[in-house]
Amino acid sequence: MPNIKLVLEYDGAAFHGWQSQPGVPTVQEELHRALETVLREPISEVIGSGRTDAGVHARAQVANVRITAPDPDLRLLKYSVSSLLKGKLSVVDAEIVSDDFHARFDAVHKTYRYAILYRDTPPVLDRGRVWHIHSKLNIERMQVEAQAFVGKYDCSSFQGAGCQAKNTEKEIFASELEWQCPYLSYTVCGSGFLKHMVRNMVGTLVGIGKGDAKLSSVVEVIEQRKRTAAGITAPAQGLSLVSVHY
Amino acid sequence: MPNIKLVLEYDGAAFHGWQSQPGVPTVQEELHRALETVLREPISEVIGSGRTDAGVHARAQVANVRITAPDPDLRLLKYSVSSLLKGKLSVVDAEIVSDDFHARFDAVHKTYRYAILYRDTPPVLDRGRVWHIHSKLNIERMQVEAQAFVGKYDCSSFQGAGCQAKNTEKEIFASELEWQCPYLSYTVCGSGFLKHMVRNMVGTLVGIGKGDAKLSSVVEVIEQRKRTAAGITAPAQGLSLVSVHY
Repeated sequence: MPNIKLVLEYDGAAFHGWQSQPGVPTVQEELHRALETVLREPISEVIGSGRTDAGVHARAQVANVRITAPDPDLRLLKYSVSSLLKGKLSVVDAEIVSDDFHARFDAVHKTYRYAILYRDTPPVLDRGRVWHIHSKLNIERMQVEAQAFVGKYDCSSFQGAGCQAKNTEKEIFASELEWQCPYLSYTVCGSGFLKHMVRNMVGTLVGIGKGDAKLSSVVEVIEQRKRTAAGITAPAQGLSLVSVHY
Repeated sequence: MPNIKLVLEYDGAAFHGWQSQPGVPTVQEELHRALETVLREPISEVIGSGRTDAGVHARAQVANVRITAPDPDLRLLKYSVSSLLKGKLSVVDAEIVSDDFHARFDAVHKTYRYAILYRDTPPVLDRGRVWHIHSKLNIERMQVEAQAFVGKYDCSSFQGAGCQAKNTEKEIFASELEWQCPYLSYTVCGSGFLKHMVRNMVGTLVGIGKGDAKLSSVVEVIEQRKRTAAGITAPAQGLSLVSVHY
């Protein structure tokens, strides 16, 4: 019973997030159906490295799926599934992995990237892929504060409403804000992320950049351990899951 | 009579190229109309640094326009024009320049970038912005050959049908192919470009990369001085005008 690891690119705008739920198109559900169509067999479950929120993109989400066909044509599988979900999802890679590989439990760390277009007028070529901000930002201050996210701590301040996680302690290994005019690109690598967490971190950095009096520093926001201490939730469209490390 | 220099981003797919022509939406025509609406005055001509072909994008096309209002609100102009052409064109910058500035005649060199997505399955987040190639390419060879475009020579081999240019000699200052998996990014800077020229150069490089027997080297293609010597015309959607230098 081969265990297949899939690397997926998808457009967040085409789905209501990763996780299957009734009545709305989700990545997990549509991928499941496409795999069943292509493989011509029922599949028990498509296991993702984690959920992505509605509207969040992925460059390289990882999933695994167990199938019964002993010797699947992985090249055909990539083409066919990508073709069925054309323009919404592509299977960037597919390989047979050891039977005990589990996309969620085995994930060691994940990297997300958040893109901001910082200029007066709206995006054209990057529309749907960036958060457009035209109010004045103190970028140097944001760059310094971005580094303060590194460490292992209770992330309750960045936990979105309705998040079911029991353990809110996460470790952030890297957190950097790059400025390449007109783009601000925030990259964060961590052991895991709570619901809306990256977007709330970005909203906090932007609030600091705008000089929001409530937001004095990332360290103070972390220490308060309550969602109201942090900034707004940055729009989903600027966020992409860029890699999952095993 | 202020002379205004405009820097424009636009989505090539939304227009039939730069140049005004009857019955189809073009950048020059729609920008002209939007400027007249916003400035509430008739405008003689929007002068672009050069034409971009139908489907070709711009990150920073440059144009100039002469108006009669003595003290225009350039911030308002940027917002209003970008708002009228929302999602299709944004005025990235607008400034008053010396009366003799001419966007076409004063352009010293231009830089174009061509993006190829080199992998098995189609683009998702970059759809409409890349040429998807899944057949095997010899990238090292393409990178070496890309450099052979540098120089001053007759570019007839890369001149598209119907091109009205009298002088087909151009100088290429830089020509480089970068490989950052899964993207191949070709950047070329030159004194000017004939119709379809960059796309024909890219088609030639890709032909060489695929091992097309007709295409032995860029130098040989240049020396033949006929369009049939070069490769195919790469699709417009992968190409963007990224800067114009004055």
